[in-house]
This record gives sequence, C-alpha cells and structure tokens, in this order.
Amino acid sequence: MPNAQEPLHFADRLLRACRAKGTPICVGLDPVYERLPASLRTPNADAPAQVAAIGTFCRGVLQAVAKHVAVIKPQSACFERYHAPGVELCHQLIAEARQMGLIVILDGKRGDIGISSEHYAAGLLTDTPSLPAADALTVNSYLGVDGLEPFLKVAAAQGKGLFALVRTSNPGGDAIQGLPLADGRTVAQAVAQLMAQAGAGHVGTSGYSLLGAVVGATKTAEVRQLRELMPQQIFLVPGFGAQGGKADDVKACFRLDGTGAIINASRSILFAYEKPATADWRGAIAAATVAMKKEVMEILH
Amino acid sequence: MPNAQEPLHFADRLLRACRAKGTPICVGLDPVYERLPASLRTPNADAPAQVAAIGTFCRGVLQAVAKHVAVIKPQSACFERYHAPGVELCHQLIAEARQMGLIVILDGKRGDIGISSEHYAAGLLTDTPSLPAADALTVNSYLGVDGLEPFLKVAAAQGKGLFALVRTSNPGGDAIQGLPLADGRTVAQAVAQLMAQAGAGHVGTSGYSLLGAVVGATKTAEVRQLRELMPQQIFLVPGFGAQGGKADDVKACFRLDGTGAIINASRSILFAYEKPATADWRGAIAAATVAMKKEVMEILH
Repeated sequence: MPNAQEPLHFADRLLRACRAKGTPICVGLDPVYERLPASLRTPNADAPAQVAAIGTFCRGVLQAVAKHVAVIKPQSACFERYHAPGVELCHQLIAEARQMGLIVILDGKRGDIGISSEHYAAGLLTDTPSLPAADALTVNSYLGVDGLEPFLKVAAAQGKGLFALVRTSNPGGDAIQGLPLADGRTVAQAVAQLMAQAGAGHVGTSGYSLLGAVVGATKTAEVRQLRELMPQQIFLVPGFGAQGGKADDVKACFRLDGTGAIINASRSILFAYEKPATADWRGAIAAATVAMKKEVMEILH
Repeated sequence: MPNAQEPLHFADRLLRACRAKGTPICVGLDPVYERLPASLRTPNADAPAQVAAIGTFCRGVLQAVAKHVAVIKPQSACFERYHAPGVELCHQLIAEARQMGLIVILDGKRGDIGISSEHYAAGLLTDTPSLPAADALTVNSYLGVDGLEPFLKVAAAQGKGLFALVRTSNPGGDAIQGLPLADGRTVAQAVAQLMAQAGAGHVGTSGYSLLGAVVGATKTAEVRQLRELMPQQIFLVPGFGAQGGKADDVKACFRLDGTGAIINASRSILFAYEKPATADWRGAIAAATVAMKKEVMEILH
C-alpha cells in the first residue's frame, strides 16, 4: 500500500516500479483449472477444490514472477466464474500481491452509468483497513466520460489508475472500433481523443495521466496514430505472446524515451510448463517471464 | 428454473411471462445502503451489517413486486461493492427470484475477448444443481461479436438471454454512440446492425432473438430507427422514471403489436417510500409498481 515515501499518483508509481524492475512487462493472471499443473489437479474436483487449486497456483505464480516484474493483471472473469469464493480469492490475491510490492491492475472491464460506476469504484478500487484493493482497473468507455467520472474521482483521491478500452486486440474489435467516422477519424481514434481529454486533469509528475488506455498491438500505423492522440496515456498492451502481437507494433506503443506502455502476456507465461512439458511449473513460469523480459528489452533498444 | 413444460427459448419465456403479468415492466434492484428504509439501518453499520440489511430489503422488494411484474434486474455493481459477501447475496437473490417465478436479468455489462467471456458466461449465466443463475445478462459490445460468441453459445444451450448495450440513456453516451460514420449511420446504428446479425441465428417462435439490446428511451426518432434496424431484438429500456424517459420515446421502443420492449425502472420504484415519506416501504414499493404498470399500459394503448 502507498505510504508517505511513495508518490501518490498512479502513473508515477507505475513508472517507478517498472524502472526498479527494469522492464515494462506485466503478467496476466488468467488461471483456468483444466490447464493447471497436473500436480495441483484432482479427478472430479468440485468447485471449492478448484478454487483452492487456483489459489495455490496463483500464489506460486506471484512468487515466481515477483522479482522479475512490477505489474500483474488478474482477469476478473476467471475468478467470478466461481461465484463468491472465486471473488474472495481474487480480492485476497490482489492484497497479497500488493503486500509483495507488486502493482495490480484488475482486468474487469467495468463500465456503467455514473451511479453504478460509483459502486464499482467503491468495491474494486477502494482500499479498506483490512484489504488493499487493486491499484488500477480496466474500464469500458462505450458509455462515455460521465460513466468514467466516478472511477476518476476515486482513482485521483487514492493514487489509483484506470485503463480505458480504446483498441482491443481481438479480431472482432475492428467491426466497431475500426469504423470510419464522417470526420475521417476511426471510432477508436475518437475514443482516444475523449480519453486524452478526460485524463488531462489527472497528470502526474511523470507527464502521464492516471487514466491510461488499453491498446492492442495490432497494426503499427494504427498504434502510432493512437500514441500521438494520447501522449499522456500509458498504454496497457495485451496481444503479446498468445495473441500474437509483433515487435514493431509493440514498439509503436511506447514514446520515444521508451516509457508509456505496459506490455502484458498472460497465457504464454502462465502455462509455460505445458510446452515443453515439465513438472517444475514455477521454474518454467519464471523462465518464460525472464525470456519475455529480454524479448521486450530487445524491442526497445 | 425451466422445466419440460416451459419453452426453452429465452425470448419466448420472457414474452410469455410478461403476458401472464399483463405488463412489460421490469424492476431494477439497485440497493444503496444509505437509502434503505430507516427501520433497516443502524448507526455505524459495518459491511456485513450493510449486506444483511440489503438482503432484507431486496427480499422485501421481491415480495412486494412479484405479483405485479415478470422481470427484475439486479445491478451487479451494488453487490460487488461489498466484495464476496455482496456477490454471494446477489447470487442468492437471483436464485430466490427465479424460484418465485421471476425472470432475472443480471445487469453486469460484461464484455471481454472470447476466452474471458467464456468464464463470465460460465459464472453468471450457467445454472448449477444447487443454484439457478440469472436468465439473462447485459453485455458490452465494444469488443465486437467474437467477444459475445461464448455468451451466445451458453445462452442458446440453456434457454438464457443477453442484452447488448447499443444506445445508453446517460448524457455522455452521445459522445461515442452518437458519432456519425462515413456511411451515414451513427455508431449506435452500426452496433445495432451488428447485433441484429449476431442474434439472427437465435430467434425463438415468438420472432425475437435471445440477443436483445439495451436502448435508452432518449429521442423518439432515434429509437424508431433502432427499432427498424433490430426487428428481432427485445429492447431493454432503462431511463424510465429517475432517468426521465418520456412516453413517446418509450412507445417507439415497442413493435406495433405492443411487444418487443422491457421497460425498466429502478430508483423511482425502489425508493418510493422516500416521497412521500412512509414507514410502510413494502406498500410504497408495491404501489409505485402498480402506478408504473398503469402508466406504461396507457402509453401502449
């Protein structure tokens, strides 16, 4: 949790943490029971047994990656599928990761009208005396800026951050985000400009806003334009590894000084023990993290 | 839960249930501790006490409205703000409402890439032997159709439904949804056409798809165009009551035969005991429901 020594602004904290670990990468925590290491699974495991195994796995992942990376991103859906016990585990893991000094981005892609966003911000971004909450949350911007304002307010007050969906990495994203507007922009570019405006009042000493943007590493030219439209946004970049993002596309997400993007990999790191198959899953996950770190460093230099 | 006598298709079940109750209205379950009846609140209530009071209130609401309406819509954010105990209560209320014969639309506005949507569909739409899940879920379509496909698959297999955000009722919705495209459509119209296509393979005997659309009762002309673009979508219409939707706008959400829309009111019914202030909160909620039912019937005839 932030203390008096830490800069309170989310972007400043995030940049400092990445600098300390020497990498802008983020490990996505998207656990799926069926893909857990065989040693953690039991035949016909019921839901409580699956949640327990996922907890053991995720704690092992945190231990394996904590010295290599500054940021982790739990995928809320993987926990919500187990109802309250899964949600409880997710909140616990977030608290444990923060106590280990990691920055936690909860990938929940929430978005609603203002009054409901207030409740999400209270539940998902607000520290309680007994439980530090996530440092940041992914949000959906389709409802516009008034739906984001309660999130911005809570984030500004508590040194937390947000990443608004601008351009997603999935194939179907084009159908809406890629549509050309009458004024020559695409929908994603219009959303980018809205987010740049909404985040402008929330810029830290690093020059970045607490309101970042989810931008898939899809096409280099498109990413470059989004980078120009959102100079103060930190990009959260999925699509590295399992989703197939390429080096040039990833490089275009950064500013020229090599800051401004967090590169996420989830499945390619989490399930690294599958290929080549090994019982040492912690070792395989740590090795995959180190390998990705090197790969991203080569892209940046 | 559906049994052998019931039509399995969500749209067919929904229409039949509304016909049986004589109204297409839906009561939104958006409980906020600070606004609960004074008799349910205690000074300095901690989180567990607040969750317990919200449970008592929501059960009272279900009892008060169940004979008047066919559909309720819990707002997930109001429960998630209380972490796992809130989520547990939400799942319990959904199960209890279904056991009372109500159709439950969980307002979670989830949306992610396919693999994460699979987890959401498993957690939020899938009945388990001990716990019937919601009949339908609101989803965000900004990621495109591939992110919706896992929801569609689960919904089709289980007689469940979806309502995709097309045009929201909040003031900020214009900034993205109202943008004019190069081809003359608005973003919301493009999303409407995508949803009409995505839902076309999932039409019940009623002529409606299990994939419906969230369409705010904002401007009559705009609603009419969306109705034409989505002839097979049931509209879930927020913005009645507290958000200020008007009669003509609401009427335009229906097809000419008076079917095709579910009109939601949340705060204007839930907190009806505030104005005029009365200790009989159950009575005030029931009366507000009956009054709204009459109001909507007058609009339709």
